[in-house]
Order: sequence, then structure tokens, then C-alpha cells
Amino acid sequence: MNKFALRKNVVILLFVFVLLSVPFVVAGPTGTDDYYYSQSAKPINGKATLADVTKDDLAKQVSHNMFSLDMTWTLLAAFLVMFMQTGFALVEAGFCRKKNAHHVFLMNFLVYPIAGFAFFVVGFAIMMGGSNLFPGLNGVFSIHGWNLFGFKGAFLAGAAYDVGIISLFLFQLVFMDTAATIVTGAMAERWKFSAFIIFSLFMGAIIYPVVGAWAWGGGWLSQLGNIGLGTGYRDFAGSGVVHMVGGIAGLVGAWYLGPRIGRFKDGKPVLFKAHNLGFVIVGTFILAFGWFGFNAGSTLASTDLRISVVAVNTMLASFTGAFSAILLSKLKSKLWDGGMAANGMLAGLVAITAPSGFVNPLSACIIGAIAGVLVYYSVWFFDWIARIDDPVGAISVHGLCGIWGVLSVGIFSDGTYLGVKGLLYDQTLAGGFGQLLSQVIGVVAIIIWVSGTSLLFFWISDKLTGIRVTEKEELTGLDTSVHGMPAYNGDD
Amino acid sequence: MNKFALRKNVVILLFVFVLLSVPFVVAGPTGTDDYYYSQSAKPINGKATLADVTKDDLAKQVSHNMFSLDMTWTLLAAFLVMFMQTGFALVEAGFCRKKNAHHVFLMNFLVYPIAGFAFFVVGFAIMMGGSNLFPGLNGVFSIHGWNLFGFKGAFLAGAAYDVGIISLFLFQLVFMDTAATIVTGAMAERWKFSAFIIFSLFMGAIIYPVVGAWAWGGGWLSQLGNIGLGTGYRDFAGSGVVHMVGGIAGLVGAWYLGPRIGRFKDGKPVLFKAHNLGFVIVGTFILAFGWFGFNAGSTLASTDLRISVVAVNTMLASFTGAFSAILLSKLKSKLWDGGMAANGMLAGLVAITAPSGFVNPLSACIIGAIAGVLVYYSVWFFDWIARIDDPVGAISVHGLCGIWGVLSVGIFSDGTYLGVKGLLYDQTLAGGFGQLLSQVIGVVAIIIWVSGTSLLFFWISDKLTGIRVTEKEELTGLDTSVHGMPAYNGDD
Amino acid sequence: MNKFALRKNVVILLFVFVLLSVPFVVAGPTGTDDYYYSQSAKPINGKATLADVTKDDLAKQVSHNMFSLDMTWTLLAAFLVMFMQTGFALVEAGFCRKKNAHHVFLMNFLVYPIAGFAFFVVGFAIMMGGSNLFPGLNGVFSIHGWNLFGFKGAFLAGAAYDVGIISLFLFQLVFMDTAATIVTGAMAERWKFSAFIIFSLFMGAIIYPVVGAWAWGGGWLSQLGNIGLGTGYRDFAGSGVVHMVGGIAGLVGAWYLGPRIGRFKDGKPVLFKAHNLGFVIVGTFILAFGWFGFNAGSTLASTDLRISVVAVNTMLASFTGAFSAILLSKLKSKLWDGGMAANGMLAGLVAITAPSGFVNPLSACIIGAIAGVLVYYSVWFFDWIARIDDPVGAISVHGLCGIWGVLSVGIFSDGTYLGVKGLLYDQTLAGGFGQLLSQVIGVVAIIIWVSGTSLLFFWISDKLTGIRVTEKEELTGLDTSVHGMPAYNGDD
Repeated sequence: MNKFALRKNVVILLFVFVLLSVPFVVAGPTGTDDYYYSQSAKPINGKATLADVTKDDLAKQVSHNMFSLDMTWTLLAAFLVMFMQTGFALVEAGFCRKKNAHHVFLMNFLVYPIAGFAFFVVGFAIMMGGSNLFPGLNGVFSIHGWNLFGFKGAFLAGAAYDVGIISLFLFQLVFMDTAATIVTGAMAERWKFSAFIIFSLFMGAIIYPVVGAWAWGGGWLSQLGNIGLGTGYRDFAGSGVVHMVGGIAGLVGAWYLGPRIGRFKDGKPVLFKAHNLGFVIVGTFILAFGWFGFNAGSTLASTDLRISVVAVNTMLASFTGAFSAILLSKLKSKLWDGGMAANGMLAGLVAITAPSGFVNPLSACIIGAIAGVLVYYSVWFFDWIARIDDPVGAISVHGLCGIWGVLSVGIFSDGTYLGVKGLLYDQTLAGGFGQLLSQVIGVVAIIIWVSGTSLLFFWISDKLTGIRVTEKEELTGLDTSVHGMPAYNGDD
Repeated sequence: MNKFALRKNVVILLFVFVLLSVPFVVAGPTGTDDYYYSQSAKPINGKATLADVTKDDLAKQVSHNMFSLDMTWTLLAAFLVMFMQTGFALVEAGFCRKKNAHHVFLMNFLVYPIAGFAFFVVGFAIMMGGSNLFPGLNGVFSIHGWNLFGFKGAFLAGAAYDVGIISLFLFQLVFMDTAATIVTGAMAERWKFSAFIIFSLFMGAIIYPVVGAWAWGGGWLSQLGNIGLGTGYRDFAGSGVVHMVGGIAGLVGAWYLGPRIGRFKDGKPVLFKAHNLGFVIVGTFILAFGWFGFNAGSTLASTDLRISVVAVNTMLASFTGAFSAILLSKLKSKLWDGGMAANGMLAGLVAITAPSGFVNPLSACIIGAIAGVLVYYSVWFFDWIARIDDPVGAISVHGLCGIWGVLSVGIFSDGTYLGVKGLLYDQTLAGGFGQLLSQVIGVVAIIIWVSGTSLLFFWISDKLTGIRVTEKEELTGLDTSVHGMPAYNGDD
Repeated sequence: MNKFALRKNVVILLFVFVLLSVPFVVAGPTGTDDYYYSQSAKPINGKATLADVTKDDLAKQVSHNMFSLDMTWTLLAAFLVMFMQTGFALVEAGFCRKKNAHHVFLMNFLVYPIAGFAFFVVGFAIMMGGSNLFPGLNGVFSIHGWNLFGFKGAFLAGAAYDVGIISLFLFQLVFMDTAATIVTGAMAERWKFSAFIIFSLFMGAIIYPVVGAWAWGGGWLSQLGNIGLGTGYRDFAGSGVVHMVGGIAGLVGAWYLGPRIGRFKDGKPVLFKAHNLGFVIVGTFILAFGWFGFNAGSTLASTDLRISVVAVNTMLASFTGAFSAILLSKLKSKLWDGGMAANGMLAGLVAITAPSGFVNPLSACIIGAIAGVLVYYSVWFFDWIARIDDPVGAISVHGLCGIWGVLSVGIFSDGTYLGVKGLLYDQTLAGGFGQLLSQVIGVVAIIIWVSGTSLLFFWISDKLTGIRVTEKEELTGLDTSVHGMPAYNGDD
């Protein structure tokens, strides 16, 4: 068939399509109103007409709508947070070397189901099982009224098979996974795969859930207000619960593993170039996008109108974090460094996470700007002084800026939300000073718990399977030696 | 101008900016309440004060809010499903060879508008035109009370120009496009571009819409409950309607086309390496993200609170699917294979799609784990026994696990939602046994319809334009020969 | 430890996990209803039982729910629009050369915080400060009743620290950033980094906000209906306010900078190949995904049910835009060009942005198809006739198709939404003819303002820092010379 005939046939075919559809067009509507509102609205409580609807029908439906609004918000925010895993995968793989890209991508990929499943089996019950947020979550282990952890809700079975509890579970799970995936960055390019799996199970089952119980599951940190320290430890969306946990476990892990071969020469750091800065930038954008869900979703309710302030604070701190990091780096190196801009934005985001609900937009700008400075000097410190090899800067971004975020709650909170006040707005013990004390206690407690347990679990995984790849595997590249295939392949 | 002067100028400029803005700051509010709730809330039904609002005003607004909640949910879910196209593009291109990347990306890109437009012209009318979901969708072709397909709503003109119908249209369209894009994976790297266009038109206009009408448009499969087979064929979000349709059309197409040159040598499969495993992993994450919209959106209502259970089931099955596939592959090959982990997660997602609304979280874990095993052995089967060349594993992931998902509804449904019960919970004909029978009938019907019509349409497109690229084009790589440019170019 | 022992240990570990969790499972619920609705619904206005709820309680909560619905929609749409930055980064970097990829990615990355921060400091106050949309936004500079710009809301301080205003701010900011990022495409691969920073500050502070004030902040363009020109200038989601502004500033900038070295030889354009078409396609998908938020979000309310029509119009125009561009290109070059398909889809999206709320689906198809034709010939025109070097086609896609979109409101609007009618539906001055006149006035005013001010600000940044990189930097590639590192690096 020649080309002209072919084109003719295709035209005829398209024409037949259109013709076929003509009888399918229905008659037009009679009034313009029909276009605006739909032909079909559902009845309220099954009543046929609006006039039949009673006050009780209305109350029931209004309550249902409110519940639905809040749950939908929680779910959508959780979806966004889950999507952040993609951002982490891109940022971490982008910062690492090409020969380990398959490895880094796969750790970031599998940490989501592995730690998530451990959270399903036992972590959620420990974290929220004693929170009393829902009638089913009513089992708590406590000493002298101070709650330590819960024990209801495993497998989402029994009373935990409830739409409200299940939406809470989804939200908490994706937060936990954020903490778990941070570790894969600090330990990248040399962590043995089976040791990674074992540690991730512990992360999702125990390390994270206990901190979560203390801060968000009705635990002792959140109870500090009872003894007059402000409103107790406050961490709106997890600078401490999520980012510090990941950052500190990462620090312990990176130290335990030691640096990548050749990373330090004569006591000086050697630059290992990022293999794909495009991935780093795109990943950072995805993280900034998902972070709206991370922070604004932490109201667990869209009828809590504070969500717009939270979202804007989050964005503004990401702006100023990116500024201060890249300007500082430009000042020192004369180069516009895309990697530092990305880490600066992430630093701002990590720092604003805890205070995002409690501060005003100008304070958010300041918090972010300071985080950008911190991340710049912290990366320098770990490279030149501590000589701990953190391929993606995870310890600086999540660990240090996480601490800064937690503390900033006790400084900048302006009292317009849930009565939380910082030192700048109130200098009493019941107010800002006590709030800052609560935050300091939180930071110390999280550092002790996470560094202790991670060290234990790294040691256990080391004994079970060994924790570091062999020298030969590392030099060859893990993609070829452990995964059997490089991430990128030309034509064969 | 020297560098110092430059820096000074920039600083001055920034300073002027800030100064300029000072008069723009407005006076502070008087009460802290102002910060929390907005200054401006809209009146209900135009009434100036709350006291003026009557019960009828309230009923009207409550009904409106409910409609708005449900429609917004449907739209947002549809957006997420549309975004899955990006995931498919990345996964399929990533699994293919570099020399055909432009080709694979472009097929995945264009299948969205092409099949989508055919759905607009005629497909939607066939699928939902007789569904009676809205007053305008009331034209159905039926035999002895068994509905076969509809014929109202073409071009969204006339009575179909209605906000409710249009949101339904958007949701159904993106589902159809998912089915259509699966085919491009199974037939990648050798399908002639014009033949691909013609087939995609048929997919959006006829093949998919007819199955959709049977299951979701009030058609005969959904009516099976009328003759006592459980509640009739149930496919919550389309393991059958969407994934089986794509997978089976892909199977027929891959068989019709034959394998890529050099793919089998002396009867044994030759490994063609994935050209970018980063794309595969990122694409899988995007798919898992969009799948929340795919499954949880399928209530078409956020006031249907089952959505949280659906979302969590979806996630859990993706976890266990990834586990069983990668562990099986590690056991056999001693390697941690990222591609298999990705396909395992997708297998779990495909399988849970149909039962996601009807089962509890533990059952979701089991369904996903079995899917991961199925996909592993199925890929092996098509490579070593059937010798059908499926570059991305689409037939195994979507076809076989789609079948498994449809059947699992008849096994694991626990009766807590819409009265659907599986064999494990009820062994009567009106209950679980009948339900399983309905599901089997659905599987058989879809296989027969899709394999028959796809064969016909592949044959038609073959006669019109030829269906396979020339040997020379294939060996050169389609990017250079058909698209005039490789996907990746160095500096010129 | 040998492998068998290792595996055994892991199995034991997993088993202990599961055992540990068994006591955590709580007893099952008694009724199946418990599974469906949650155990816990919040009280309305603090009333313990539904019977206690009064009509006033209900009115308050219904009003709150409505506000919450609308604000949530606005926020979610804003998140999606922010995510479009990722799409722009991928499309622009993909179309450019490998040696400048770091540069292009970084400009797209930093334009978001830079222009965004300027908008926070002063831009928002200019744009919406006199809009009267909220009580706090009540300062406007006007002449004879024609509003020119506002001056309330800087830093979101004072009365602007309000949840409603802050959600409006977020939405407007991400729109402004879209306009600002378009410029980086037209001026890519040769714009000096410090000049880019200075211009982006002006873009966010002045150029964009003034146009925004005219069209959306209650300004004179929107007031044209007062003198009988239809309903005044109408731009539903910003074909003019956003895309024309970016496209025209890009045109002025690309002309001011001159072409890249070697781009024209003997008066003929030389093809610089896209370095990554995968990025282009993926970026386009992300843009099409975010565009749902861009257009449908522009109601600022999900209780405005028109949103579903807007979303579907947006999608259909993207379909037909992609068709006409790729078919035209295939007809001329015999090749299926992925880059042209992507730009065709974007052209359709840009064009439908202004009319998306006012037209019916069939008109959307026509508007998109014409845009696809326009973009094809416009790219040709700038290459062969005007000889202005636009590396990504931004001037054609956003500038020209933006103009077409604005005009199409005056042609195709069918009067079903907000009374806006186009020439095809009403030929009076108060109706369609006047509407078209308003649109023409808008186009002319935007062209004059944007070209004038951008020229001024390009000149200022040129004087301050110089506007173009040196020849040596350009030939070496900006990644190495300005940023110190290529975007992609092999193993070191």
C-alpha cells in the first residue's frame, strides 16, 4: 500500500469514528443553571427532598462531612509524604557515584516496604497504641503516670480495623519511612545489603516508634507541660521525631562503617563528584513538594485552618535556607554550587518542620536562613574536622538542622496557635522559657535513645551478616558486584 | 565595574526593596482569634448573618458541600492517575535499550492524548452512556435485560455537559489510558509508530469501553448478582477492567509482532539490559504514588470513608509483592535485583486493585505476596517456555496478576463493605462461592473479548500500515531511524 | 558465619518480630458497622450528642466546612502548581546541551525562592493589596476610579497574617514563579548568573505583580466591563497574566542577549540537539499534571463546581495541541518528533489556560488544535525569519499561545459560567464583541508593560553585573566554568 493510500485510509477511519459518535450526542439542556450545578446531588440521610431533611439528619451529615474533610486531608497529605521517597531516592543516588547508583536507588526503594512492614507488624502499636486518639488505641505502658509506649493496633486487626485509625496509620507510616530512608544516605556506597535490611526492620519496629510514642503518642515528652514546662515538648511535624532520628542514626552508622575507600587522603577529604546533579535538583523539588503534605498535613485535619500558615512557613524557610547556603558557598568558593543550593533548601525545610505550625512567616524566614548557614558549616565540619564520611550530607541536613528546628519552637513560637509560646514572646517558666526547656529535654532524650539503640542494632546486624561490603566489591562498584547490573547500560 | 562595587550595588538594591515594602505592612490585628480563623467566611446561601440562615438554607449547603467533597476527591484522584502515565513512561523506557528510548518515551506520551481523544469521541458513551449514574447517561443497548453497552455522552455535549458527568468522564478516561499504555510496554522496541496510533484509537474507542460497560457501566457482568452469583462481578478499581485488558492486549500484540531481533538464540533468551534502572525505580515510585488515587479514588466519593482502608491495603500489597519477588530472585540468582523488586511491587499493586475495597489489611498482605511469586515465575515462563518477548514484563505484571486480583475478590472479601464476601468468609452460592464464580466468569469474558478484538485490530493496523518496523530500523535503533534523534545527545 | 546459618538467623529474627506483636492485637469489634464508619467522630461546636446541636451550631459548622473545603482546594492546587517547577526544570534542561545542564537546572531551581521571596517582600502587596478579597487587602492606588496597583500585605504581617489571605498568597506566589521560570528557558545557556538573580527579583517584585493587579487584583483591566466592554478582561488562570508575561520577557531577553555562539551560520539556524528527550517528555507530563491545579484551582473554591469542566477542558486542549503539532511536523519532516509533541501539548495547555473556565469541551479541542499549529510555525519563524535564539521554544509556547488563549476567551466563551460570552455566542458590545475588545486591550497592555519594564531591568542588570557570560565560559560550558562541576560525572 503506498503512502498516499495509507494516509487516505487513516483519514477515512477517523471520519468513520466521528460519524459513529453523532447519534450519541444527546439533546442540549434547557437552562444555563444545568451547566453549573450537576443534575444529580445525593440525598441527605436518604431523604428524597430538602424539605424532608430534619435537624438531626443535618447534624449527622455535617458531622460526617467534617470527618470526611479531615480524613481526606490526612490521606492526601500522606500520599504526598510517600512521594517524598522518590525525592530521597533521586537526591541520594544523584549525590553518589555512578558505579553504585543501582545500589542507592534500591536501598531507597526497599526501605519503604521493609521499614513500613515492620511498622505494620509492631511499630504502630508501640507508637500510637496508647495515644487514646481513637477508642481502639487504649493500651499504654507507663511509669508513675509517664507514658513510655503503647501496645495496641498491631496488624490493624481487631478494633484497629477502623477507618479513622487506618488513616492515622498511613500517615504515621510514611513519616517513619522518611526517618528510615535518611539513614541510607549517610551510609551509602558501602553498607552491606543484608545488614541494611535488618537495620531497617529495627528502625520501623522499635527505634522510631518509641520516639514517636514519646512525642505524638501521648508519651512523657508531650506530658512535660504537666510539670509546668510550657506546653510540653512540641514538634509540629517532626524536626525531632523524624529528621533527628534519621540524622542521628545516620551519624552513628556512618561512623561505625567508616569512610568510603579513598575519601580521605593524608587527613584531607577528597571530593567524590555527584554523578547526576539533575537528579539532585529534581529530587529536591519533589521533596519540597511532598513537604507541604508533611507539614500542613500534620494538623490531621483540614478543618484546622492553620494549614495555610503551615504551608507558607514551610515554603519561606525553604527559600531562605537555599539563599544562605548558596550565597555562603559562592562567597567562599566563587562558584554557584547547585548541590549546596539543594542541601540549603532541604536544611530550611527540616528546620521549619517542628515550628511550622507555631511561628509567623517572618520567623520562618529567619529559621530557614540560619539552617542554611548551619548546613554549610556542618558539611565542612564533618569533612575536615570529624572526618566522618556522609556522601549526601544527611547528618548535617537532617541531624543538625533537625535539632535547630526543635529548639526554634522554644524561641519563635508566637502564641497564636495552641498557646505555644517561645522565648521571644514570653520569658516565664510556664511560657516561653519552659517551652525551650521542654525542647532541650526532647533533643537530649532523642539523641540518647537513638544513638544507643542504633549502635546496638548496627552491632547486631554486624554480628549476623557483617555490615560493610568487601573492599573488592566497593572498588568494583556495588552495582556490578552485588546487584549484577550497572544502573545505566548502553546498547548491547 | 569591579567585584566589590558589584556586590555593594546588589546589597543596596536589596535594601531599597525592603525599605520600599515597609509602608506596605499593615497594622496588626487586635485579638489572637483573628490569626486562627480567617477574616472572611462566605455567607450560606447569601444570608448575611448566621442567625438568618434557615434549615432549608442549611440543607441546601450541606448537600452542596457533600457533592463538592465527593467531586473534589474524584478529580484529585484522577489527577494522580493521570500522573501514573509519567511512571509508566519511566519504567518502560528504563527497561528498554538506549537506542529506542525516544521511541518508548514518545509512545507512552502520545498514548495518553490518542486513546484519550478516542474515549472522548466515542469510548465514554459506550462505557458509561447506559450507566444511569446521572440522568443524562440513560441510553443502553441490552438483550433480555442484560446490558451490553451504552450510547450517550459523546463529546460531552448536550446533557453530558454537566459537572458531575464531566468529573466521571475525567476519572474513567485516565483509567482507560492506563490500560492503553500497558500495551506499549509489551510491544516496545519494534512496533511501527503508525500502527501504534491506529491500535490506540481502537483501544480508547472500543476494546476498553466495552469491558468498562460490562463491569462498571451497569453491564451484564455487574448484573450477575441478579441470578444469585454473589453480588455479581466485582472489580473495585480494575485489576480486570484496566490491567487485564492491557496485559492481554499486550500478550496478543507481543505474540503477533514476534520477539526483538536477537532476543532468543538457540531457543534460549538473551538478556537485553535495562538502559536506566534509575528510571525504573523512580517510575515505580510514581506509579505507587498515583495508585493511591487509582484505588482509593474508585469510591468516587470521599464521604465514603472506606477510602482509608483502600489506601492502606494498596500500600501493604505493594510491600509484600516487592518482598516475595526480590527474595525469590535473590534465592535463585544470589543477586539483589532492582528490576525484579520494582516489578514485584507493581505486581502487588495490580493484584490488590480489584479487592482493595473488600478485604482487610492482612489479606492484602497475602494477596500481594502471592502476586510477587506469580510475577517472578511468569517472567521466567514467557522467557523460557512460551518465548514471547515482553521487554518490560507487562504481560506478567498486568495480565497474570490482574487475573489473580480479580479472583482474590472471590476468596478474601470479608463482607464489611457493600456485602461482598469471598470463599473464606462464606461458602454459599449467594455468597462467597457465587462471588468467586462471578469473578471467574469475568476473567473468561475479558480474556475472550480482549484477545479477539485486539487480534482483529492488530490485523487491521497491519494491513493498513504494516505493524512492525523494518529489520534495518530495528538494528539501527528506532530513535535515529524513525524519530531522527537519539534520546540522549552529548555536546555538539 | 556461613550463609545457611545467616539465613536461619534472619528467619528467627523475623519470627520473633511476629511473636512479639501477637499480644498487641486487640479483640475484634462486635458489629460490621464499626468497620465502615469510624469509632470516633468529632463533636459539632463541642456538643456531646447530635441532639444537643442547635441550628446555630450547624450554621457555624457548615460555614466552617465550606471555608475549609475551599481553602483546602486552593492549597492542594497551589502544591500542584509548585510541582510544575520540576517540570519546567526537566523540560528546559532536557532541551539544552549537556555542558550547560547544571546551569539550566540551577536557574530553574533558584528562580523559585528568588522571585518568590521578592513576591513575599513586595510583590504580593502590589498585586493583591488592593483587591478587597479579604478585609486586610484594602489599600489601592487608583486614578479616576481605575485601580493601578495595591499596597497592603507585605511580609504577610499585620492584618495579612490571616489564614485566608495566606492561602491566597501561596496560590498567587506559585503562579508568579511560573512566569519567572519561563524566562530562564528563552535565555538559557548564555545568561550570566548574577544578572539572572537580579532580573528574577524584579520579576517577582514588580513586572508580574502589576499585571496581576490589573487582571486579578481588582485593577483596570478587570474593570473594563464598567464601560460596557463585555465583562471586562477575563483571564481564568493566566494565559495572559502568567504565560504571556513570561513569554514576552523571554522574547526581550533572548533578543537582548543575542543567540548562542554558533546557533546561526550564514543566516541559517544550526540544530543544537536536546541533550535528554526523556527529561523533556517526563517534564511535560509533570507540567500537564500540575496544570490541573493551575487551571481548576483558579476558582479558589471547590464548592464552585465548575472545576470539573475546567479540568477536562485543560486535558482536551493538551490532547489536540499535541496532535496538531506532531502531525504537522511529521508531514513536513517525515519524522515523529518527540520534542515537537511535547511543545504541542504545552502550547495547548497555555492556550486553554485563559478560557478553561468559560468554554465547553469541544471548543477546548479547537483552541488546543490551533495552538499546536501556532507553536509549530512560530518556532520556525523565530529560527528562520526573526533569528532569535530560544533554546526551548518558550517564546512560541508561552508568548504566542498565551496571546491566542487570551483572545480565545472573546471568541469561544459560551456564557454558561459567570456570564462571559464570546463572539460566537453573542455579537453585541455588552456581550461577545465587547469581550473580545477587552481581551485585545489586555493583550496590548501586557505587551507594552512587560516589554518596557523587562527591557529596563535587563539593562539595569547589564550595567550592574553584565548580562552575558564570556565567550570562553560559553564555549567551555557553563557547568565547568561557572558552577565548577558538570551535571553528570562518571566514576572517579
